[in-house]
Amino acid sequence: MAETNFTLTPHGALAAGPAIILIEPQLGENIGMAARAMMNCGLTDMRLVNPRDEWPNRYADAAAAGATAIIDGARVYDTTEAAIADLQMVYAATARPRDMTTEVVTPCEAVVRMKKDETGGVRSGVMFGKEAKGLTNDDVALANAILTVPLNAAFTSLNLAQAVFVLGYEWFQVEDDTEDAVLAVPKETRLANKMELQGLFCHLETELDDSGFFHVLEKKPTMVRNIRNVLQRARFTEQEVRTFRGIITSLAKKRKG
Amino acid sequence: MAETNFTLTPHGALAAGPAIILIEPQLGENIGMAARAMMNCGLTDMRLVNPRDEWPNRYADAAAAGATAIIDGARVYDTTEAAIADLQMVYAATARPRDMTTEVVTPCEAVVRMKKDETGGVRSGVMFGKEAKGLTNDDVALANAILTVPLNAAFTSLNLAQAVFVLGYEWFQVEDDTEDAVLAVPKETRLANKMELQGLFCHLETELDDSGFFHVLEKKPTMVRNIRNVLQRARFTEQEVRTFRGIITSLAKKRKG
Repeated sequence: MAETNFTLTPHGALAAGPAIILIEPQLGENIGMAARAMMNCGLTDMRLVNPRDEWPNRYADAAAAGATAIIDGARVYDTTEAAIADLQMVYAATARPRDMTTEVVTPCEAVVRMKKDETGGVRSGVMFGKEAKGLTNDDVALANAILTVPLNAAFTSLNLAQAVFVLGYEWFQVEDDTEDAVLAVPKETRLANKMELQGLFCHLETELDDSGFFHVLEKKPTMVRNIRNVLQRARFTEQEVRTFRGIITSLAKKRKG
Repeated sequence: MAETNFTLTPHGALAAGPAIILIEPQLGENIGMAARAMMNCGLTDMRLVNPRDEWPNRYADAAAAGATAIIDGARVYDTTEAAIADLQMVYAATARPRDMTTEVVTPCEAVVRMKKDETGGVRSGVMFGKEAKGLTNDDVALANAILTVPLNAAFTSLNLAQAVFVLGYEWFQVEDDTEDAVLAVPKETRLANKMELQGLFCHLETELDDSGFFHVLEKKPTMVRNIRNVLQRARFTEQEVRTFRGIITSLAKKRKG
C-alpha cells in the first residue's frame, strides 16, 4: 500500500459509525496510528479517557500520517462514564472473560449490529484499554457486550491500532460494494473479442506450421488446443493481441531473415 | 486488547498460509509490527527483499513484541524474483492500477483462493511495497493478481503492518469457527432456568405488592409484564438470580425495619 495524498472527508460524508474510545492510552504514537486506522475506515469519532501523556501530542500527530481531522476532533474525558454517556450501545474490546457473564461477539457480528442500530438512531461505541493491560473489569462492566477478535490463540497480543483497525475494517466492509474479484482494464483498451483472439491463434499457428513446429503431424490438434487453452486463460486485451501478433511477426522475421 | 504473554506456536502447527514478502521495507519498526501481525494471525513465512536498514534489526525485534519466531525465521533476498521463486501464486498488495490489465481481488476473496490453493498443494505469497511508495510496476508485473483493501477512498494510505494484518486477519477467519455471538458464562455457574426466574419474579412482585408499588390496581398486569420483560432480556445466571433475590430481601428489610 503506497502512502498516498489524501483529501479530507468532511465529517458526516460517511455514516458516522461507532465512537472509538481509547481508555488511558499510553503512547501518543498509538493514538495517532489509531486515528489513521479510523480515517482509513471512515470512522471519525475518537474519544480519549485520561491519555497518559500530554494532549495535544506531537507523537500522535506524526503517527496519524495525515489523519489530522480525527486527532483535532478527538474529545478528552476524565472518566469512562463521561466518555460513553451519550452512547446507547457500548462494546468492550478485550479477550473473552473468565469470570463474567457477558455476551461475546466477533467484530463481524458487532458491525452488523452497529449498522442496524445506527439506522434505528442508536449510537454505538467501542472501548479499547491501555496498551499494557487492556480494559479494567470495571470498564468492561460498563459495556453491553464484549468484542473479541478471533486470532491465533497462542499469540493474541494485539497492537492497539490494529485492534481499532480490525473493527473499522469490518465496519467499512458492511456497506462496501467492492466486487470480490474484477479484471481491471485501462480506459484506453478493452478485453479482446473472440474474432481478435481467433486472429491471434491463426497467425501463430500459421507461423508455427511454417517453421516446422508441428513436425509430428498427428500431435498437432492436441498441441493447438493446449496453446489456445493457455492463451485463453490470459484474457488478452485487444491491445495485447496486437502486441502478441507483433511478437510473432518479429520472431518469424528473424527466422526467415 | 491486553498485551498478553504468549506461547510460541511451533512452525507448521497452523496451516502454513501465504508467504508475506516485504519489498525494500524502510523502517525496522514496521517489519517488527508486521511480524507481530503475522503471528497474531498464524502466519509464519516472512521474506524481506533488500530491507533499507541493517538486518537483524533491533527496532524490528522491539516492535515484534514477542513475535520473535517470525523475525528469526525471516529470509532476506536481493531481488523480488528470488523471494518469490518457489511460489506458484503471487498477489501484489497495492491500490487498483490505472494502466495495467490485471485482476483485482479483495483480501476476503484472496484468502479463499489461497486456502483452496494450499489444499491443492499450491503455495501463495503476498508482496507489500516500501512504506513511502508502495510496489513498483515491475514488481506488480510479477504477480498473478492485485490485492486491494476496500477502504475510505478519501484516505487509503495504509500503514504497512495494517496492510499485512488485514490479509492475515482474513486468512485466519476463513477456517476459524468462532461463533458470531455467544453468551460467555463462568464455569462456576450456568444460565438460570425458568423455575429460578419465576422464583425471582414472584419474590419481587410479592414484595412490591407489600410495599404498595402497585397502587393503581388495574395497571398491575401491564407493569408486571414490563418488569418481567426487562428482566428476561438480561439473561440471568442462577448465581445472579440469587444475588437479586438477596437485593430484594435487603431493600424490603430496610423498608420494613
